[in-house]
Amino acid sequence: MKKPMTMTQKILANHAGLDYVEAGQLITAKLDLVLGNDVTTPVAIKAFKNMGVDKVFNKKKVAIVPDHFTPNKDIKSAEHCKMIRQFARSKEIENYFEIGEMGIEHALIPEKGLAVPGDVIIGADSHTCTYGALGVFSTGVGSTDMAVGMATGKAWFKVPEAIKFVLKGKPAKWVSGKDIILHIIGMIGVDGALYKSMEYTGEGLEYLSMDDRFTIANMAIEAGAKNGIFPVDDKTVEYMKGRSDRELKKFHADEDAVYSKVIEIDLSTLKPTVAFPHLPENTKTIDEVGEVTVDQVVIGSCTNGRMEDLRIAASILKGKKVKKGIRLIVFPGTQNIYLEAMEEGLVRTFIEAGGIVSTPTCGPCLGGHMGILAEGERAISTTNRNFVGRMGHPKSEVYLASPAVAAASAIAGKIVSPEEVL
Amino acid sequence: MKKPMTMTQKILANHAGLDYVEAGQLITAKLDLVLGNDVTTPVAIKAFKNMGVDKVFNKKKVAIVPDHFTPNKDIKSAEHCKMIRQFARSKEIENYFEIGEMGIEHALIPEKGLAVPGDVIIGADSHTCTYGALGVFSTGVGSTDMAVGMATGKAWFKVPEAIKFVLKGKPAKWVSGKDIILHIIGMIGVDGALYKSMEYTGEGLEYLSMDDRFTIANMAIEAGAKNGIFPVDDKTVEYMKGRSDRELKKFHADEDAVYSKVIEIDLSTLKPTVAFPHLPENTKTIDEVGEVTVDQVVIGSCTNGRMEDLRIAASILKGKKVKKGIRLIVFPGTQNIYLEAMEEGLVRTFIEAGGIVSTPTCGPCLGGHMGILAEGERAISTTNRNFVGRMGHPKSEVYLASPAVAAASAIAGKIVSPEEVL
Repeated sequence: MKKPMTMTQKILANHAGLDYVEAGQLITAKLDLVLGNDVTTPVAIKAFKNMGVDKVFNKKKVAIVPDHFTPNKDIKSAEHCKMIRQFARSKEIENYFEIGEMGIEHALIPEKGLAVPGDVIIGADSHTCTYGALGVFSTGVGSTDMAVGMATGKAWFKVPEAIKFVLKGKPAKWVSGKDIILHIIGMIGVDGALYKSMEYTGEGLEYLSMDDRFTIANMAIEAGAKNGIFPVDDKTVEYMKGRSDRELKKFHADEDAVYSKVIEIDLSTLKPTVAFPHLPENTKTIDEVGEVTVDQVVIGSCTNGRMEDLRIAASILKGKKVKKGIRLIVFPGTQNIYLEAMEEGLVRTFIEAGGIVSTPTCGPCLGGHMGILAEGERAISTTNRNFVGRMGHPKSEVYLASPAVAAASAIAGKIVSPEEVL
Repeated sequence: MKKPMTMTQKILANHAGLDYVEAGQLITAKLDLVLGNDVTTPVAIKAFKNMGVDKVFNKKKVAIVPDHFTPNKDIKSAEHCKMIRQFARSKEIENYFEIGEMGIEHALIPEKGLAVPGDVIIGADSHTCTYGALGVFSTGVGSTDMAVGMATGKAWFKVPEAIKFVLKGKPAKWVSGKDIILHIIGMIGVDGALYKSMEYTGEGLEYLSMDDRFTIANMAIEAGAKNGIFPVDDKTVEYMKGRSDRELKKFHADEDAVYSKVIEIDLSTLKPTVAFPHLPENTKTIDEVGEVTVDQVVIGSCTNGRMEDLRIAASILKGKKVKKGIRLIVFPGTQNIYLEAMEEGLVRTFIEAGGIVSTPTCGPCLGGHMGILAEGERAISTTNRNFVGRMGHPKSEVYLASPAVAAASAIAGKIVSPEEVL
């Protein structure tokens, strides 16, 4: 009798050349993509060289995206970028993207069709879990694992246990993927899914756009999860159209698969949700927030820098003004998103409202550059982490929220629901 | 008998309440504007406080523009901006511009109508001389002078000697204001106008747009000059329309004014000109450049980040691609210029060509952020200085040129004339 598996188990079994894998099992799996950025790749290159390897396992299956401190913030970041650029050229890595083709890695990789349903992907960046939105097993690894991945095309994994999230009901108007994942992290905590797979299922999925799913998968790591993953449905297939000529593999969890926990969430009951400093689990619904003024509003990042995010933010800011003294920084995920947002008039809306629109970069999210906070300053941000000092000074504060709440807060100068400014 | 004066002498005499001033004379003049940025204003604020003064001399006549390390590059720059923001608020300074209203100070001040023909302006930034394009006496000062200016509305000056540049002839197609000023600096050297006024005159002026004049006046300091200045003509008056309700004062040099030198330049004989490392005086005409490959192309800044600059660059890049591996960074001078460039489709052209468009900032020009060079890298840039390490690593190189030459070089991957890529 065939033993049941979760979606993640099935993908891993497939890539390990096994019929069955169980939670806790150590396996070696073939990789469809190995990813790195400008922070992690220099370290991976050193490890790669120490291995005495001459070339990468597959020139098409390595992607390097310098996005954290680019356009180069300083001499150090310029040197790092130079190093990885030279490595990419010498190893003839096809998917090397910088200025011109650039974007934030986790927005860019799906857009370029480099994450295909059924894939196993590792990336030397914690938010590599984003591609779970496409039914991909993807997870963040260290630079050494990236090096080994580049050299061998393989990685070892401990097959994760899984938590099943059964979504039902239709979310209310201002409730987005960001509110759903913040609600979940608020519920289970930042270690609530430690080394586990977060598998999403249920009829509520039909109300989640691909951009919602990217946001939800992106923040799996903020609950400590190994990965977050969505079934491949019509929306996934539609998204993938024209992006890749590789086969879409649809793995579905068996109905009797074993989960360490099953959590039902009625999306219709959720409210816009904000994570208070200094952990993503410190959530409050918008009606519980109280009076929290802000100095800076950040809309963008690998979490919320896609078209839907920008559209909803612009729909709130259209014809309105950012409150005097508040800095609104919008950074689209990729050059294509930037172009599309420009074509739709969203960039104009942001600027006319009194915001600025940055070229794509991870910059402000990680306190890298392009919007760092001073002591005592407070930001509301659509990014993914609000740890101490995440966006600048150790005595600054970051509140995580959806693009809708962030946009509304830019107008009000304090954290509010979109309804309060419309 | 009335003694003759240069244009600069007349403006200074007027503001000193004197009928006549002569070169070398020490005077105290009333100021129409006192300007600072995020690098110089924190120092000025400390000096201001040490003076025991309570308020600025005129809330309308102080302008502070944090543009060098903004959007905040790091915690230090965030702290500086916070300090000047608090100062601006507490002193009720009306012309404080940051994110949202932001721009590069020397592009923003004229755009906002804060530099009016006949004015005397000091700014704690060396390129304050830019407003000479409008028939303003404007010059860079130190932070202490800025502090005294903010407190008293006055500054002392040694009335400069003047060099008269008589421009004649019509420039050829690809010869812009940038080529003219690079030609001049190449001719007289980086100390060729030390503490002097560079006064432009002649029938060739009719071929120089306001944007050409801003570029030429902007780089007066690169010849060591105290200021560069243009007569107020129909173009100036046209430019000022709707920008200020203050009176335009037209000061004209007397025909028999005394100049330390008179230099005639036949604009029709000039060629596109490039300043080689590491001084703006190291000029070669484009046909003398030889084979110089580049890694990065920078178009923008207070020198060449205005509409005409972006238009000519886009006209060359339209439908073409930046050479693979070359980083093209475009940064418009102000949010308004960015919007206008977007409306005209220029931003789309830059991005489709493979460049990125930054929010306005001085960043790359001074090696601040947003495009720093690594060791051994080479940039062609429309900025104003190519000193050792100006744009990053001490072993990097900057070549100064016009937007047209920079755009053409982005396509070719080496420094070329626009004609070679069209």
